[in-house]
Amino acid sequence: MTDASTPRAGCGCGPVDMHTHVVPADFPAYLGSRKGVPWPSMVPAAAPCHRHVVISGEVYRTVSHQCWDPAVRQADMDAMGVGVQVLSPMPELLSYWLAPEDGSAMCRFLNESVARLVQSDPARFVGLGAVPLQSVDAAVAELEHAVRVLGMAGVEIGSNIDGVPIGHPRFAPFFEAAAALDAAVFVHALRPAGMDRLVGPPQLEQVLAFPGEVGLAAASMITGGTLARCPTLRIAFSHGGGSLPVLLPRLQHGFLTVPQLRDQMQGRSPLEAARGLWFDDLVYDAPAIANLLRVYGDTQVMIGTDYPFAIMDREPLARLDALGLDAAAIERLRSGNALRWLGQRAAVTAPTGTRPGEPAPS
Amino acid sequence: MTDASTPRAGCGCGPVDMHTHVVPADFPAYLGSRKGVPWPSMVPAAAPCHRHVVISGEVYRTVSHQCWDPAVRQADMDAMGVGVQVLSPMPELLSYWLAPEDGSAMCRFLNESVARLVQSDPARFVGLGAVPLQSVDAAVAELEHAVRVLGMAGVEIGSNIDGVPIGHPRFAPFFEAAAALDAAVFVHALRPAGMDRLVGPPQLEQVLAFPGEVGLAAASMITGGTLARCPTLRIAFSHGGGSLPVLLPRLQHGFLTVPQLRDQMQGRSPLEAARGLWFDDLVYDAPAIANLLRVYGDTQVMIGTDYPFAIMDREPLARLDALGLDAAAIERLRSGNALRWLGQRAAVTAPTGTRPGEPAPS
Repeated sequence: MTDASTPRAGCGCGPVDMHTHVVPADFPAYLGSRKGVPWPSMVPAAAPCHRHVVISGEVYRTVSHQCWDPAVRQADMDAMGVGVQVLSPMPELLSYWLAPEDGSAMCRFLNESVARLVQSDPARFVGLGAVPLQSVDAAVAELEHAVRVLGMAGVEIGSNIDGVPIGHPRFAPFFEAAAALDAAVFVHALRPAGMDRLVGPPQLEQVLAFPGEVGLAAASMITGGTLARCPTLRIAFSHGGGSLPVLLPRLQHGFLTVPQLRDQMQGRSPLEAARGLWFDDLVYDAPAIANLLRVYGDTQVMIGTDYPFAIMDREPLARLDALGLDAAAIERLRSGNALRWLGQRAAVTAPTGTRPGEPAPS
Repeated sequence: MTDASTPRAGCGCGPVDMHTHVVPADFPAYLGSRKGVPWPSMVPAAAPCHRHVVISGEVYRTVSHQCWDPAVRQADMDAMGVGVQVLSPMPELLSYWLAPEDGSAMCRFLNESVARLVQSDPARFVGLGAVPLQSVDAAVAELEHAVRVLGMAGVEIGSNIDGVPIGHPRFAPFFEAAAALDAAVFVHALRPAGMDRLVGPPQLEQVLAFPGEVGLAAASMITGGTLARCPTLRIAFSHGGGSLPVLLPRLQHGFLTVPQLRDQMQGRSPLEAARGLWFDDLVYDAPAIANLLRVYGDTQVMIGTDYPFAIMDREPLARLDALGLDAAAIERLRSGNALRWLGQRAAVTAPTGTRPGEPAPS
């Protein structure tokens, strides 16, 4: 659809929402030879413009045309004041639990779907693809296709791959390939740990279990050594990095007092390592966003809304305005940091933002 | 050892460290009739004054006489500037995975051990007992014994009871009994969720998995309705409440936007519910403590160090001094909040602290 010489999508016109999801309007029939594969399909829903995503005979989620119709998305973006959406698949579609061949087929289908959406308005949509990380070799191959052939800015991955945290050394070759390809990586909570600790309705999975899952995924990239192996990797974490702001001082204390932990982290301070990561600001509270800026610095935080799902943040710009920051910092949060993470040419210059521990510019 | 008319231990002389642990110098032989019970025993260690806690034939942890010798503890308290220690069993000893009769026997032994330590210096030690929550009836009976016969201020419980979160309705009668007995409850992380998400040495259990476990335990008390059932319960959470400061804005957003969640929480704002809980300040970082004060208010946070274990905070007072608070707030954090949580008579008056959202007193 594009080749590697085409400038990537997203012209930088206005605020960038780097956390939005896509569900294709339909799924192809399963063409593999296995039995009982949890391959998704679409079924019409009673509500206008809605469809059920059905997996293994059950409705996984009922979604609307916001998920697949660019015109609907553009109207919503205008209403929310969002200039550019970064598109990534609904995480459950990442399909790490399928056999590698089936997972590859699903990822290729998703990537072509996302790329078509981007092509409908390359100035306002940036695409992130999916890769079948149940096979690292297949994931690297699909990453290359997504970036080189489909013109994507990078990929979305789950916080764990069928239960194995992304910081496990087995995945390091994938991250090395992403760094070499100059591809952005977006880590999204998926099938979180701690589900047996919830007391309440099913929505608590996203409300309460996602943050711990994302925090542990980010920590695993630090304690497992992958970040040290891939110093140029541009990797972002959903939901403000979840519990990571709470974990970091403990990890720093462990780094300073437990020799085994310092060895494991190859002498690199986890706080410094964390400040090389990117994070969305999906924490639903202006003081909580201010806390992200304190921990990570105002060069690493980006708008992310979870559009168009039920729990989405409908007022991303108002939350930033409530922080009382100077215009340059606001601009970084609105778009500059996201464009830098995405590797967009307009924003490759290193910013002069406030780093944690430094006084804020007046 | 004491009766209910005896004033409880802890005279309020100096800073109160509400998170310190006890291991008895020895364990009684297992006297039950079951086979293969993971009943702990003590084995001498090579290092002077050290012993191995052996469970199921393996060294669970090597501990020193700090765990059982009051004179050693008092010397350490003097060096750290701590006036009063609240003593609770090493959490693994809570033994929820034993048969109820065996669990009751272990808890009775622990409670008598802690009570003896308190009796050695009732002005400087306050005791928290253990209860066999694998049987709620047995736990209530042991709680009554601990408070009425042994003169304890309350009990320590795990964040989950053999995998079931404490906010499960089955445990509500225990919390009702604690409220009726005017007993303080201290919730400590135990056998945490998320262990399969860690990449690194075993210490990561405490460093990285504890915070998410504690946060979900606290959230379960809100979403499961137990706090609403027990409005006078005085309950504190270890490790600064773990991930709870990250979870609360998401839970508040869910409360405001998801009808099922609002129904589940009986219309009570989770933020307000959380501000009725107590928390230690064991977050290893002055700005992180300041964040606890922002979220919970300076009437609900107390000194907690995890003495005498390897990961303990050795400078609890310096961290508070670094916050730049006024003298009254410092006094609340040093002792007033802990004495209020413990139900000590000297401090039953409601404090006039800063509530979140209010300006700080000048």
